[in-house]
Amino acid sequence: PLLREAGMQSNAVDVVFTGADHGVERGVEQDYQRSLPVAEAMHEDVLLAYEMNGAPLPPQHGYPLRLVVPGWYGMAHVKWLSQVDVAAVSFEGFQMRAYRVRRQPDEDGVPLTRIEPRALLVPPGFPDFMSRTRVVRPGLITVEGRAWSGWAPVRAVEVSVDGGDTWAPTSLEPAPHRWGWARWSWSWEATPGSYVLSARASDMSGRSQPIDQPWNPGGFANNLVQRVPVAVIAAG
Amino acid sequence: PLLREAGMQSNAVDVVFTGADHGVERGVEQDYQRSLPVAEAMHEDVLLAYEMNGAPLPPQHGYPLRLVVPGWYGMAHVKWLSQVDVAAVSFEGFQMRAYRVRRQPDEDGVPLTRIEPRALLVPPGFPDFMSRTRVVRPGLITVEGRAWSGWAPVRAVEVSVDGGDTWAPTSLEPAPHRWGWARWSWSWEATPGSYVLSARASDMSGRSQPIDQPWNPGGFANNLVQRVPVAVIAAG
Repeated sequence: PLLREAGMQSNAVDVVFTGADHGVERGVEQDYQRSLPVAEAMHEDVLLAYEMNGAPLPPQHGYPLRLVVPGWYGMAHVKWLSQVDVAAVSFEGFQMRAYRVRRQPDEDGVPLTRIEPRALLVPPGFPDFMSRTRVVRPGLITVEGRAWSGWAPVRAVEVSVDGGDTWAPTSLEPAPHRWGWARWSWSWEATPGSYVLSARASDMSGRSQPIDQPWNPGGFANNLVQRVPVAVIAAG
Repeated sequence: PLLREAGMQSNAVDVVFTGADHGVERGVEQDYQRSLPVAEAMHEDVLLAYEMNGAPLPPQHGYPLRLVVPGWYGMAHVKWLSQVDVAAVSFEGFQMRAYRVRRQPDEDGVPLTRIEPRALLVPPGFPDFMSRTRVVRPGLITVEGRAWSGWAPVRAVEVSVDGGDTWAPTSLEPAPHRWGWARWSWSWEATPGSYVLSARASDMSGRSQPIDQPWNPGGFANNLVQRVPVAVIAAG
């Protein structure tokens, strides 16, 4: 790792990443800065990326250099990196205070770190333009999607056709690599009527998706189960 | 042109393009269909595109084949083309009725066709996160942007720093080709204070951008002048 080659000292606590993204937030003029504890920054999967799919990193992804912290929410993946500092004290910069999950606006809360488990499904059939209801003809439908979690591998994905009242297990494939999306699928014998399709992921850390999302002022870490209204119509 | 090679007959009126985009709109199940009058469809710049920048057309741009009608709004550029028909009578399909500019919801209105003139400017300085006001330090600033029109080449671009009360001419470069964006720039001696920057394009057909946008129920053909709030602060 670069940090080891650079000769990090034993009293190092945090690694501070500074991006060229400059602005004013709540009256404070700043460059975007986020830190990682030394142990996280030294993880073998943490990267400084200068290319993607064999081409230079595009500007919107952080050209020329971007921090990638697999499993963490996007605020940790500092773009347009201009500086990396190793600090012997805990870094308390503006953006370390900004990304916290608070139940009350004035409480201290907890830092946002890894990605909560989540499953999404491919909406079946075709859309009704205004309502976004999906229109499906009756018969055997393969409902499929992907699931992921930054905490631990996905253990199971369940589906519901009644808006979360009852759940059925799906067939889950292993993710192609530790941070990849896991494919899941389920066969649905669709008969005429109105449905709400949902999928719910659980991971090996014991986390799963909520049916009612707890409120937090930043709107962070939302992993409420997806709801897809479906109208199964008579065979056309 | 393909249409000539296909042996179009002399009584042809409209060319109807059908895409694979299937859905329900206002209760009508349909594939997306739009027509062009024969004279427009035969224009030498109208293309069936199967690649872009030397690579196959991406799915989101209409893979495997998409109609491109330079100078027209996007509704004419039918994606995922599945069929091309030549009709001896005027085509009156659903999407021909949908894209019309109406001053009253129940009037017949006029069809949406070519792109109205428009100029955009690169917001100078850096942003205030919440208000999106741009923060600029005093001094000589190059304000620059691009302008285009589907009706005729851009004739002039003017800028305003007082929200449209007064206007100054900019330096305009010719567009790189008939349908390209024309670059424009202007030097601004910025002194501390609050401003609203705008740019306004006029084309050789006599069209220019409005300061107050006439209302229409579809929200089509909006080319209201851009407004960028700027705070010039003391030199930092």
